[in-house]
Amino acid sequence: MKGQKIGYLGPRGTFTKMAVDSLFDGGSFISYESIPACLDAVEQGEIDTGVVPLENAIEGSVHLTIDYLVHQVNQSIIAEMTVPIKQHLCIHPDHADEQVRKIYSHSHAIAQCHQYLHKNFPDAKLEYTASTGRAAEIVGEDGKGTAAICNALAAEEYGLKIVEENIHDYDNNHTRFAVVQKTPKTLKVKDHPVSKHKTTVMVTLPKDYVGALHQVLAAFAWRKMNLSKIESRPLKTGLGNYFFLIDVDQPYDQVLFPGVQAELQALGCQLKVIGTYPSYQIEVPSPARKI
Amino acid sequence: MKGQKIGYLGPRGTFTKMAVDSLFDGGSFISYESIPACLDAVEQGEIDTGVVPLENAIEGSVHLTIDYLVHQVNQSIIAEMTVPIKQHLCIHPDHADEQVRKIYSHSHAIAQCHQYLHKNFPDAKLEYTASTGRAAEIVGEDGKGTAAICNALAAEEYGLKIVEENIHDYDNNHTRFAVVQKTPKTLKVKDHPVSKHKTTVMVTLPKDYVGALHQVLAAFAWRKMNLSKIESRPLKTGLGNYFFLIDVDQPYDQVLFPGVQAELQALGCQLKVIGTYPSYQIEVPSPARKI
Repeated sequence: MKGQKIGYLGPRGTFTKMAVDSLFDGGSFISYESIPACLDAVEQGEIDTGVVPLENAIEGSVHLTIDYLVHQVNQSIIAEMTVPIKQHLCIHPDHADEQVRKIYSHSHAIAQCHQYLHKNFPDAKLEYTASTGRAAEIVGEDGKGTAAICNALAAEEYGLKIVEENIHDYDNNHTRFAVVQKTPKTLKVKDHPVSKHKTTVMVTLPKDYVGALHQVLAAFAWRKMNLSKIESRPLKTGLGNYFFLIDVDQPYDQVLFPGVQAELQALGCQLKVIGTYPSYQIEVPSPARKI
Repeated sequence: MKGQKIGYLGPRGTFTKMAVDSLFDGGSFISYESIPACLDAVEQGEIDTGVVPLENAIEGSVHLTIDYLVHQVNQSIIAEMTVPIKQHLCIHPDHADEQVRKIYSHSHAIAQCHQYLHKNFPDAKLEYTASTGRAAEIVGEDGKGTAAICNALAAEEYGLKIVEENIHDYDNNHTRFAVVQKTPKTLKVKDHPVSKHKTTVMVTLPKDYVGALHQVLAAFAWRKMNLSKIESRPLKTGLGNYFFLIDVDQPYDQVLFPGVQAELQALGCQLKVIGTYPSYQIEVPSPARKI
């Protein structure tokens, strides 16, 4: 759509921005300082669409996104993006021959590269920054003897040189992002493979009784509906009161899902559909082609 | 035990340190820069005991702790601590009359106080720091017109004055910490209520088949074993391969758990006990009494 307005969890050079750049085909992009700020902007109609991390992101907490979607706003997930997390060691191009004495990054990124750093830079001082983008900014400003751990976009934004690619300890590390809307509006996206169609539901139990979850899952299992993720989260009414967030590996339909819902209601549970959406797999281009 | 050596995710003034101070009765405390570094130190015998965030902490990622425990080290959870998260607005005591123009904190803490900030400081500039402790340090150094969002311990460490208590949007926000050991050694802890005894198990499914989780939970349900938390996590072997982390609300025993294990093995699943342990509820003293 011409004129689509997309908000995302910023600032520049985050994995969220990388995902946004990869998925959307045109539109205006607005950076927000926090997940709640981005979701509030969607709620108040300042933007049509919000993009926030949903799982395993460096810059955002899963729980915060889920809790805010469930408790604070009335929005649906209309798409998800899965992006591989690739961390690189980046330096200032003018100081390529200097020994690296200090390495900047977000604490989660440093933790993700723990074994690499332990092996290759056992004596370097680690400095924690508020984001991987901020680490790149610092090294871009005053780069002598320093390096940043960041993604390729941040390296590009701040003019850094990638000296070692893919220094993260695990190769199969992905981040999921949720694309949310309050009022359904068609998205204009680039051509990406849709890996599958998913439906996310929230199930609240009447009380914490033995075997309750097993009974809930039975309603899906006997219909042969595959669940790809399940997570219990505390309700904000105190410890011990949980709701369940369940990803079902199929689109919402008018037979199976209403059947599940009716059965669960008969058991005293509530089921709310958080979204039914395509899941896009975003491939990040190799940084070598970028610099 | 005299001479207990306890490592924790630092630095000073974190919620982890607050939990450590509250639970342990004596011993030497060593701060580590990251979750993997702390768990590695336990693995290599540098310390007897490690304390790392397990859920909902500001400074640490749940997933990182779980994944490292499951994939990298061979340690058991021997206790857990639940600590309420209380965020306060803190200023430099010499600048109490200044208008607050800039507020420092970790991005998750700022997000947790989103509604408070929106209402009371709509025009203040938000500055993200690597930790809430670092925010307190910055305000302690150059406090004019600035405030930090941090806990009472960080305020005390850096000599700040708490001007507004409990500014977080949700009151029932808790953090869970895991106390881990490689070689079992008795802990000397202060007198805290043990809310319950729990057992955490990891279940791996042979393949992603429809209804698998339902079958796993049936093994617990027909034995009337209550599950207080369940979470699916990707195995590091690629997307779509999951294991399940399940908290059972009872101590390990020689009848029920081996029965579950035998049944699950017959179905082609693996069950590994990550720990059976007391859960301590730590009450944080009111900051008003501290300053």
